Amino acid sequence: MVNAEWQSGFSFEILAKDPHSRARLGRLTTPHGIIATPAFMPVGTYGAVKGISPDELLQAGAEIILSNALHLEFRPGSEIVSALGGLHRLMGWDKPILTDSGGFQTFSLAKLTRRNEVGIEVRSPVNGSKFQITPERIIHIQRNLGTDFMMPLDVCAPGDASRESVVEALETTLRWAALSREAYDRSNPIHLKPQALFGIVQGGIYGDLRQQAVERLLEIGFFGYALGGLAVGEPIDATWETVEFCTGLLPEDKPRYMMGTGTPEDLRTAINLGVDLFDCVLPTRNGRKGSLFLHDGKINLRNAAFRHDINPIAADCHCYACRQDENGRPKFSKGAIRHLLVSGDPLGARLGALHNLTFYQDVVRTARETLKLNSETV
Amino acid sequence: MVNAEWQSGFSFEILAKDPHSRARLGRLTTPHGIIATPAFMPVGTYGAVKGISPDELLQAGAEIILSNALHLEFRPGSEIVSALGGLHRLMGWDKPILTDSGGFQTFSLAKLTRRNEVGIEVRSPVNGSKFQITPERIIHIQRNLGTDFMMPLDVCAPGDASRESVVEALETTLRWAALSREAYDRSNPIHLKPQALFGIVQGGIYGDLRQQAVERLLEIGFFGYALGGLAVGEPIDATWETVEFCTGLLPEDKPRYMMGTGTPEDLRTAINLGVDLFDCVLPTRNGRKGSLFLHDGKINLRNAAFRHDINPIAADCHCYACRQDENGRPKFSKGAIRHLLVSGDPLGARLGALHNLTFYQDVVRTARETLKLNSETV
Repeated sequence: MVNAEWQSGFSFEILAKDPHSRARLGRLTTPHGIIATPAFMPVGTYGAVKGISPDELLQAGAEIILSNALHLEFRPGSEIVSALGGLHRLMGWDKPILTDSGGFQTFSLAKLTRRNEVGIEVRSPVNGSKFQITPERIIHIQRNLGTDFMMPLDVCAPGDASRESVVEALETTLRWAALSREAYDRSNPIHLKPQALFGIVQGGIYGDLRQQAVERLLEIGFFGYALGGLAVGEPIDATWETVEFCTGLLPEDKPRYMMGTGTPEDLRTAINLGVDLFDCVLPTRNGRKGSLFLHDGKINLRNAAFRHDINPIAADCHCYACRQDENGRPKFSKGAIRHLLVSGDPLGARLGALHNLTFYQDVVRTARETLKLNSETV
Repeated sequence: MVNAEWQSGFSFEILAKDPHSRARLGRLTTPHGIIATPAFMPVGTYGAVKGISPDELLQAGAEIILSNALHLEFRPGSEIVSALGGLHRLMGWDKPILTDSGGFQTFSLAKLTRRNEVGIEVRSPVNGSKFQITPERIIHIQRNLGTDFMMPLDVCAPGDASRESVVEALETTLRWAALSREAYDRSNPIHLKPQALFGIVQGGIYGDLRQQAVERLLEIGFFGYALGGLAVGEPIDATWETVEFCTGLLPEDKPRYMMGTGTPEDLRTAINLGVDLFDCVLPTRNGRKGSLFLHDGKINLRNAAFRHDINPIAADCHCYACRQDENGRPKFSKGAIRHLLVSGDPLGARLGALHNLTFYQDVVRTARETLKLNSETV
């Protein structure tokens, strides 16, 4: 293995461990700043977390955000992002960014894709034009973007796929993982700061395949390891068994990222199984529609029951939507935000998303604080 | 004339006058704070300035905003706004609010309306249900809203209407103005703070009718006077002649509001003709689409020419979209905002609206500063 680019500017330290679970408190250092882990990444697929400003993301407590290499290649094109100074500049966000490769997107856009030996042919959902993506091109795109964490192109099999298909998907994923690492090693940052590469563990719900995946990825060598192909239709028990199996195999000293998960409860479960990083569209997508997370469950603020409600979404929440005004009264009542949501004002969607994003950041912050209190310092 | 409710809590002082025009620098005091005039009111028809937060309005320099009594009666209903503590609470905006009556909206929703002796029957554009609105009901609605400045129900004739129709519309407007004042005098604030009532001058482009309107409204007595029925299709020269004619008739010591106007150049023209207050959807509606005001003209940021543009919208602008980051680089480049606009991200619409709102506030602030420098203090 050649000397990895991520050896400069990146590090991952475990600061404390939970004596009763696999949970760990970590510090992930990047050229764009430090992330306390466990961490949740808001999703800004197209280079923005729909309608939310970078300052609002900071205020919600986010230290890293997620975007998508393939979608940015569709629009505006990674060459244009590069000409504009890279994705950090495009987004007005100077803190760390992780980009997914688009492997999962070719799975969710299955009707628009055709896979062959060297890559995937995909039609842009924007204008139908053809893109031939390969492991090498996905690395090149992420060089154009200049993101802190790059993901290799992978193949995700559906949760109900036959073992045969999962084997085939895994073989391709592992072959492409090696090609991605080679393309990474052969290329250099365009936007000056070094970038780090993750590996993606596939293998469905089959322990032996997951084990094969982990072993091969460790041979190739990556800065961190992502768990892919989970919550794609398999039974929920199998999801957690697979997570537990994989975190048991992965090296302690590398960051672990469970892709595309999940509810607040899912985050807590996965943290206890030793996962460090999360992303999910749930808080923003639900929040924009008025489906809001609370400590005692969820509410749908569009419900007529909230029409006259003068209380804030959550009295103990510090988000912009729940804040008090100078006179100690709620800045926005549930009735007011309901009116904005029902009348389709984008401010309603924004307040809902801000509340949920803050809630998610509070989930991981609380997990970190609990770890700090209860853990063995390492 | 009975002792007017606005005599407590409201005042209008002229601080300086331009020796070369009718422009004046004023201070408009309300129970929710002071407004420096000439002033521009961002438009929040349904109780929000689409997608923009109250803090962003403050940051743009707004000291008063406009909303619409009739639209709020359609949705969520003024009784509900009242139950939520009034419109200031609904909007999270503790500074002054002016509500238009909906007279102009029954004009722009003409197909949904039918006028009779006592009022206007209008179908809700939200769900088609019938509303019978009268001068008295519009006052009642604005009592429910608790807005600082209330407008009476009026009738606006199109710019190409016959003199006969304009006479008829004016007669109804003046009859309703008297009924509005009576309803105002007979009622009390629901939300504790006093409210003030404006009169609306109609009469099309006919000097004698405008004169009749001003004289009758002055007999009835209002806190301030609005110029209605302008920029509704009449020749532009006639617009300005009418404004000049009316401000020549109106008392010096009362605030004057030109409804629904206009471009930055229109504002400057009207200020020189002695107008104090403005509202217009132009900055927000255009801004959301990427049509942006600059000191040297307008640009459409969706234009492909801006695809690679690394510069901010305007280097000399202090709005959120044009601000620099910690490193003195533009927070958002034109290329970045173009990408947000083209990909339909609500953040693009928001940044465009914020830029234009700030531009409009700068237009009136510059006018005030010029008046301060060049004027005779009174």
